[in-house]
Amino acid sequence: MNEVDFFQLKSWVEVPAHSDFPIQNLPYGIFSTDGTTARPGIAIGEHILDLQAVAKLGYFDELAIDIHVFDQEVLNPLIALGKPVWQALRKKLIELLSEGNPSLASKADQVLYKQAEATMHLPVQIGDYTDFYSSEEHASNVGVMFRGKDNALMPNWKHLPVAYHGRSSSIVVSGTDIHRPKGQVLPPGEEKPVFRSSKRMDFELEMAFITGSNTALGQSISTAEAEEHIFGMVVFNDWSARDIQRWEYVPLGPFLGKNFGSSISPWIVTLAALEPFRVKGPEQNPEVLPYLQYDGNKSFDIQLEVALQPQGAEETVICQSNFKYLYWNMAQQLAHHTVNGCNIRVGDMMASGTISGKQPDSFGSMLELSWGGKNTIHLQGGETRTFLEDYDTVIMRAHSSKFGLRIGFGEVKSQLLPAIKE
Amino acid sequence: MNEVDFFQLKSWVEVPAHSDFPIQNLPYGIFSTDGTTARPGIAIGEHILDLQAVAKLGYFDELAIDIHVFDQEVLNPLIALGKPVWQALRKKLIELLSEGNPSLASKADQVLYKQAEATMHLPVQIGDYTDFYSSEEHASNVGVMFRGKDNALMPNWKHLPVAYHGRSSSIVVSGTDIHRPKGQVLPPGEEKPVFRSSKRMDFELEMAFITGSNTALGQSISTAEAEEHIFGMVVFNDWSARDIQRWEYVPLGPFLGKNFGSSISPWIVTLAALEPFRVKGPEQNPEVLPYLQYDGNKSFDIQLEVALQPQGAEETVICQSNFKYLYWNMAQQLAHHTVNGCNIRVGDMMASGTISGKQPDSFGSMLELSWGGKNTIHLQGGETRTFLEDYDTVIMRAHSSKFGLRIGFGEVKSQLLPAIKE
Repeated sequence: MNEVDFFQLKSWVEVPAHSDFPIQNLPYGIFSTDGTTARPGIAIGEHILDLQAVAKLGYFDELAIDIHVFDQEVLNPLIALGKPVWQALRKKLIELLSEGNPSLASKADQVLYKQAEATMHLPVQIGDYTDFYSSEEHASNVGVMFRGKDNALMPNWKHLPVAYHGRSSSIVVSGTDIHRPKGQVLPPGEEKPVFRSSKRMDFELEMAFITGSNTALGQSISTAEAEEHIFGMVVFNDWSARDIQRWEYVPLGPFLGKNFGSSISPWIVTLAALEPFRVKGPEQNPEVLPYLQYDGNKSFDIQLEVALQPQGAEETVICQSNFKYLYWNMAQQLAHHTVNGCNIRVGDMMASGTISGKQPDSFGSMLELSWGGKNTIHLQGGETRTFLEDYDTVIMRAHSSKFGLRIGFGEVKSQLLPAIKE
Repeated sequence: MNEVDFFQLKSWVEVPAHSDFPIQNLPYGIFSTDGTTARPGIAIGEHILDLQAVAKLGYFDELAIDIHVFDQEVLNPLIALGKPVWQALRKKLIELLSEGNPSLASKADQVLYKQAEATMHLPVQIGDYTDFYSSEEHASNVGVMFRGKDNALMPNWKHLPVAYHGRSSSIVVSGTDIHRPKGQVLPPGEEKPVFRSSKRMDFELEMAFITGSNTALGQSISTAEAEEHIFGMVVFNDWSARDIQRWEYVPLGPFLGKNFGSSISPWIVTLAALEPFRVKGPEQNPEVLPYLQYDGNKSFDIQLEVALQPQGAEETVICQSNFKYLYWNMAQQLAHHTVNGCNIRVGDMMASGTISGKQPDSFGSMLELSWGGKNTIHLQGGETRTFLEDYDTVIMRAHSSKFGLRIGFGEVKSQLLPAIKE
């Protein structure tokens, strides 16, 4: 099928205009409905296709895969089958869902659920979580505020995709509310820290990729091979308590300012679905070392937005950014991560770092949008913010579009609750 | 039983003098023997007691626990049963192994294996791995070398137990060899990094504790409760590539300089077994915030040593230290880690950071022992080192002793292999 025909393909499942989930997308998630256990599904329009049910009806028999992978409460066993199976499954699902194919359509009532009536769960058991720091604009903005203009971008930043390890236990799915964390803070001008709840609560607009293979300790992945090891992507809100972070982060990096919670969108959009949206990345100067060099387009044009919704009010979009702004691409990130022999496992999550653009309305955190609390962020209805208030809801969305085709990620939406009382 | 009687207790299993594993210890591990699957066992003298076999013979029936926990290839399900079960199981095992009790002794051939004939495996599935930085002497030594004397100990260091997240996928059990990593290094005096194998390979002498419960996101653990959530401890070698670390670590902390591999001793010594070795910790001045204050003795007197063995040569002990030197204790570490609501899971691993003492021969890394490569470390047979050479074996050992009772950890022993060729 050529690209024009593929873009125009329709499903027998109704897909509203501007839906994130046309037949060309088919993102994977873990869902449950009343009284049933969580299981793999794919999003199509406003519905979920129950992969366990489809498998039990025998539709995947010819793929010669162990259908018990569809009985699991996480996607790891399915993902572990590897890229040839991802491709075969995508092809089969497109065939089964295509308009005019009566085979599965005649059994729709056995395999389709409304998304509005389902609960979404964390889609993978996350092994390790790594957070990169790959936006030049974000790193520069934060650097100026934390260390001054002269030390904003560290000498290593343009030579390697800086990253640090984060906490996987506290990564939760969209809809899970987060409590404002407590911790040590050094009040301005004082010499002794105090213990209190954070007063500078922030989000970070990020995306994360999920690895799709297990490698051996000692093995490295080249930039050319990297995408074979990436299953798909989600939107990632890296909640941050700036006052806690600022006091603790020297010399070993962020810790309690971050690990109280991170939120992801529930649907994993595959690299296959994003294929039409490849673009050239930013020029890298100085030239990077050979193991970080790459061929072809490894960046993706994915439009991003963050909306803030005070309790009982309308939402206001306060940031519009794009994944393509990142200086370092995913292939470079994975090549760097493994160049020392560090092994990866199916289900590892690697986040991009905050994705900021050059314009002030594209900054991906309130730290940057309010420039350290100095500027006011205006919301619909007259409310203002510098950092998050209790009961604020943060909504992040992502989608790519081209020639009428829209491939979306849905959203990650979570409310900030007050600190827990003793 | 009073302490004197308990100290003199003997097992019907022969335990050589100076064994790390008398009946008072009973550490947990995962082992396999020829052609069998990995399963839980405990070390006693030079043998392993096969807990799966003991369970199948019905000896644990009265404990009313699901005996399938003994069929697992990791200890997590057993540990998840909680402290009351850990205590009941320890009591039952001491009874079954006591000299003069013929019950299990009469079936010794069905339940005992020689350690020398068994393979040890990673004892737990590690959820998240955190590395603290809790030795004042180590933090000061490294601070002087990396940042100069005036910035050695950061302003936050005496107010909170500094820590960072590490990589769990690359934690391996004693006996797994480690390849010298490759990565970016900034040669002295140059402005551009080069790609090469590390020339400053080091170990770090640490201990790690393994958490024994699952907490909810938002829940904090107090210093008073902390030890209820700690199952036991292992010896931990945090391999480090100093040249890679130095170039990459600003501003987000160590990454590729550490995550190519960490090695642990195979036997988890329980806190119950270490009870007789509690000691007072160092005085903490300035006074810490209330959530870090604690009652009672939360430090442990555990003697540590590191031996270096060049290929084909004898080993030389190059460091003797003690776990009690640490400024921050495990209860404080866990209270700090969760004060922001960060959740923990059964099998998380939390390492101490390098354990150095005041004397130069107690420094827990070659970076400190050779003072950044300036001093020579002398080995038996005339060899010298500043950092590790290919095929060097690093052996770390730990034990507590008192009134003739020795509770030991065995050892973590791994060889450094050359970098993998392209």
